[in-house]
Amino acid sequence: MPLNIAAVGAVAGPLERFWTSTDCLLYALGIGAGEEDLAFTTENTESVAQQVYPTFAVIPGVTIPDVMTHVGPYDRSKLVHAEQSIELAGPLPVEGRVTVTSRITEIADKGSGALVRVATDAVDPDSGDLRFRCVSSVFIRGEGGFGGPRGESVRIEVPDREPDHRVTYPTRRDQALLYRLSGDRNPLHSDPAFARRGGFSRPILHGLCTYGFTGRALLAFLCDNDPARFRSMHGRFTSPVLPGDQLTVAIWRQDDGAVFETRAEGERVVLVGQCRTEGGR
Amino acid sequence: MPLNIAAVGAVAGPLERFWTSTDCLLYALGIGAGEEDLAFTTENTESVAQQVYPTFAVIPGVTIPDVMTHVGPYDRSKLVHAEQSIELAGPLPVEGRVTVTSRITEIADKGSGALVRVATDAVDPDSGDLRFRCVSSVFIRGEGGFGGPRGESVRIEVPDREPDHRVTYPTRRDQALLYRLSGDRNPLHSDPAFARRGGFSRPILHGLCTYGFTGRALLAFLCDNDPARFRSMHGRFTSPVLPGDQLTVAIWRQDDGAVFETRAEGERVVLVGQCRTEGGR
Repeated sequence: MPLNIAAVGAVAGPLERFWTSTDCLLYALGIGAGEEDLAFTTENTESVAQQVYPTFAVIPGVTIPDVMTHVGPYDRSKLVHAEQSIELAGPLPVEGRVTVTSRITEIADKGSGALVRVATDAVDPDSGDLRFRCVSSVFIRGEGGFGGPRGESVRIEVPDREPDHRVTYPTRRDQALLYRLSGDRNPLHSDPAFARRGGFSRPILHGLCTYGFTGRALLAFLCDNDPARFRSMHGRFTSPVLPGDQLTVAIWRQDDGAVFETRAEGERVVLVGQCRTEGGR
Repeated sequence: MPLNIAAVGAVAGPLERFWTSTDCLLYALGIGAGEEDLAFTTENTESVAQQVYPTFAVIPGVTIPDVMTHVGPYDRSKLVHAEQSIELAGPLPVEGRVTVTSRITEIADKGSGALVRVATDAVDPDSGDLRFRCVSSVFIRGEGGFGGPRGESVRIEVPDREPDHRVTYPTRRDQALLYRLSGDRNPLHSDPAFARRGGFSRPILHGLCTYGFTGRALLAFLCDNDPARFRSMHGRFTSPVLPGDQLTVAIWRQDDGAVFETRAEGERVVLVGQCRTEGGR
């Protein structure tokens, strides 16, 4: 059954979302932070105030399962994250509450599959002030060819020079099992049989987990780990990551931020994007 | 200021405790379970029903912070877990609710410190049926010499022969940062400055985390990973574990269970105890 392309414009929400200090700690561990990052992984270390990784915005802000009900039935094992943007009005609090409203802005026919794009605004439930915005797109293999518009595709090119910074993080075989406790329980990331049906040799890492590892690298190098200086991050997922793969993030400074590229096992590019920060060069 | 030894008999509770499926998954990851243990680390794997590690009972059942208020002020950096027993009326449900009541049963003067023993009953809030019992004791260095009774000390001797089974698990440098999200936020396990004040080179692993790793080994070897066959487990902590240490569990079968010994880095004994199982040899 083809996707319901009339779902463009469909809305999910307003949904109430809240998070606790513990949610932020769990997320930080899920994206590989540890004993070197006690501001993000503990709440009671002496002389250290708890802080929240900017990419945590995707936890309350990504509403794929809610909004995709409008798109109709499809094989969930064929859905992967394709793009993710976040734009923050300021640092995220350790405990928070937002009202999120999501809208399907595009269903593009990419031939081999369909790309569904969703824009989400998260506002303060009391003042109505915008706290952050997310744009997510997902790719559903096998759902293309419905004769819809092909949509635009903006390629991000990395500069033709050595990066200003490069850092490698290990991921663990159980990385997805931990990351999923932050909310995305898609069995593609945990169930070997489900993953095989999706065409993968074993469960793959959440794209947003790779996104979080990459955001950690950007925050450390560009913002000296100060979330107040982190403005936005846009990334396109280009290849799946398997739990246990090493992730190497390369960063090229730009006027108001950077271009970045993340590779798995030092080879294939898995995420490429741009970010804006305050106090960039 | 000496401990209030008149606190023997003091009660904490009844306290209402509940847990969710997610709490059980988080605990399982905290004690090192992973992709080989999907019944314990996932809730939606095809043909796999979620199960709960028997040692999860310590999460709702250990009430040290609640009951220790009766004992008076002491240096928290000097408190370590000394002993832990659990006794289960049956397998723990994936989601549960219990009413727990704890009583200080002993404050012993060990010379170099004080040993405080706490017994906890967890009952079904509706029927009042006993679901599980915990006995915990903690050792507070520097609080001995108050002239109290020395108390009994039951040594557990391991048999003078090769164990029937031996298994080694790695722990991770961030193991305590993950385990603490199951509830015990004592900074001895996360804050380097606090741990140094306690006399440790760096934060130590929760005794109950070592207990959980050991329980996993017992459940796998003695009960074929069936929690319904696990009856009780008693252990005495003999030396601290540092996150990152390898844990080797040696198991000697007995009539109705086993004697076990856990060593860190293949050398010093860190936990020794006994367990009872159904269908033991």
